[in-house]
Amino acid sequence: MVNTNKNIKHDILKILYQAKADTVSGVRLSDSLDISRVAVWKHITALKQTGFEIESCPKGYALLNPDDLLLPFCFSSEFKTNIFHFQELESTMDKARAIAKKDAPHLSVVIAENQTTGRGRLNRKWFSSKGGLWFTLILKPDTPPPLAYIYNFAASLSLSTSLKRLFDVNVSVKWPNDLLLNDKKLVGLLSEMETRGDMVEFVNIGIGINVNNQPQKYEPKAVSLKDVLGKPVSRKLILETFLHDFKSRIQVIDCHKIIDLWKEQTSTIGSRVRIETLKDMHEGLAVDVDETGALMLQDSTGEIKKIIYGDCFHT
Amino acid sequence: MVNTNKNIKHDILKILYQAKADTVSGVRLSDSLDISRVAVWKHITALKQTGFEIESCPKGYALLNPDDLLLPFCFSSEFKTNIFHFQELESTMDKARAIAKKDAPHLSVVIAENQTTGRGRLNRKWFSSKGGLWFTLILKPDTPPPLAYIYNFAASLSLSTSLKRLFDVNVSVKWPNDLLLNDKKLVGLLSEMETRGDMVEFVNIGIGINVNNQPQKYEPKAVSLKDVLGKPVSRKLILETFLHDFKSRIQVIDCHKIIDLWKEQTSTIGSRVRIETLKDMHEGLAVDVDETGALMLQDSTGEIKKIIYGDCFHT
Repeated sequence: MVNTNKNIKHDILKILYQAKADTVSGVRLSDSLDISRVAVWKHITALKQTGFEIESCPKGYALLNPDDLLLPFCFSSEFKTNIFHFQELESTMDKARAIAKKDAPHLSVVIAENQTTGRGRLNRKWFSSKGGLWFTLILKPDTPPPLAYIYNFAASLSLSTSLKRLFDVNVSVKWPNDLLLNDKKLVGLLSEMETRGDMVEFVNIGIGINVNNQPQKYEPKAVSLKDVLGKPVSRKLILETFLHDFKSRIQVIDCHKIIDLWKEQTSTIGSRVRIETLKDMHEGLAVDVDETGALMLQDSTGEIKKIIYGDCFHT
Repeated sequence: MVNTNKNIKHDILKILYQAKADTVSGVRLSDSLDISRVAVWKHITALKQTGFEIESCPKGYALLNPDDLLLPFCFSSEFKTNIFHFQELESTMDKARAIAKKDAPHLSVVIAENQTTGRGRLNRKWFSSKGGLWFTLILKPDTPPPLAYIYNFAASLSLSTSLKRLFDVNVSVKWPNDLLLNDKKLVGLLSEMETRGDMVEFVNIGIGINVNNQPQKYEPKAVSLKDVLGKPVSRKLILETFLHDFKSRIQVIDCHKIIDLWKEQTSTIGSRVRIETLKDMHEGLAVDVDETGALMLQDSTGEIKKIIYGDCFHT
């Protein structure tokens, strides 16, 4: 029964999506789905309540912003079977971990319209207000754990490349792997993994992009694409463009090449930075990133330190 | 009922252990445990069947090799609550993973007298014949994933140090972290981990030591301590000595110091080696190991390559 309901809702969304922003009459929906017009109305009401933006008018129903819908059927056949979409999750990371342990294929994507307890690095809260693009990639590469770091760099590189190409914005990657726009945080990345017998079982990379959401007062260093571009943009376009770029980029892993390309897009090298680890704090001039992704930091005495992890602040 | 039986067997073993190799009469066991002599006999028979070496004689029962017993009560109070001992497991790695996800404390130890499907690196079969020391350490350190590698080096260093001190044997550590004796494999290490929110959830380090077992014909490059020393030795002494050394070594993590000490004990540096990865093969002279545990390999043209993972063969 639940599944039937879910399928009918899914079918309604698909019909509305295929009509783009055009209005679809209740009669057409009723006929197509072989349900009463009252049932159509009930399903539409329920869909609206769960967050789908549907306009009701005397002529019928229309999907607002169809280009922003993130349901599997919106994606090309290359990706649509790997998309897991949820209106609300506690966290895409937790859901992705559970799905990865089952039979999710390599390069699956877990999307939530809203996260109630989104997580950032070091278990900080990650704000996930409506309109942002919040997803976790599930990767199951034939990779030993010491090479897993490269997927984070590949993901931030692909995102940076995709956003530049789509919107001509001057984004930069911040070491180790967030994205900045106008020196403010546009994208946060967080990765988790499980290894087994010296091989990676899965690497999950959580990605939060401020797209059409409005960063809150308590996120003064965050910026959204909508803010900068002055108009909302399609999250689906961003995700699909990113997936294409990322998929081709990781087909053959060449760490040197990925790090070299990443370095071309980073604003960290050449900046004065403060790196905070669990136990230490380092300050200095970021002079390079080596082929393993470690940051080379020159302190006030001129000495070069190699920093392999930490939270980075451009000062 | 099962628990009661288990506790009585446990109590019998404890009484026999405390008597060291002395014979304990059936009457004394019967009185101490408030069970019939027939019940004592039945429990002893069951214990023998599950692999405990108990001698029955007209005067009673005696534990053979009490110094080799690995039950929790054999260990000092510092460790005994963290010991999980099994007569037989499919693999200590799999059991440790399950226990780590529950509430096993940091520095727990999962021991099996026998593994039916022991795993080595790259999912190779690891032979675990009776008499060897097969265990997995469960570590739950406050450590970010890029630093997890140091625990493997700390473990091989502590093992090498402990075995040298106990038996004055010329063991060496092979990059990345097995132990050799007379150029044959004495110890194999295998680590697995789970990370969450950019922090390590657990690192499990599986350790297999050929102690009193006889490496088989299909392990021509393996050697056991018993072979080399010409007599069996106490596995419990090895494990407890190692745990003491390892625990103090990881109280404050200093990667440079651990790698420096490890380098003093390695036979890899200065050797010609072949490194096999999933996709490549590298040959050359191992000239150094850097502070992140990567091997510096000089090829025939004199060029130095940095190798961050792989199976290593001294050629």
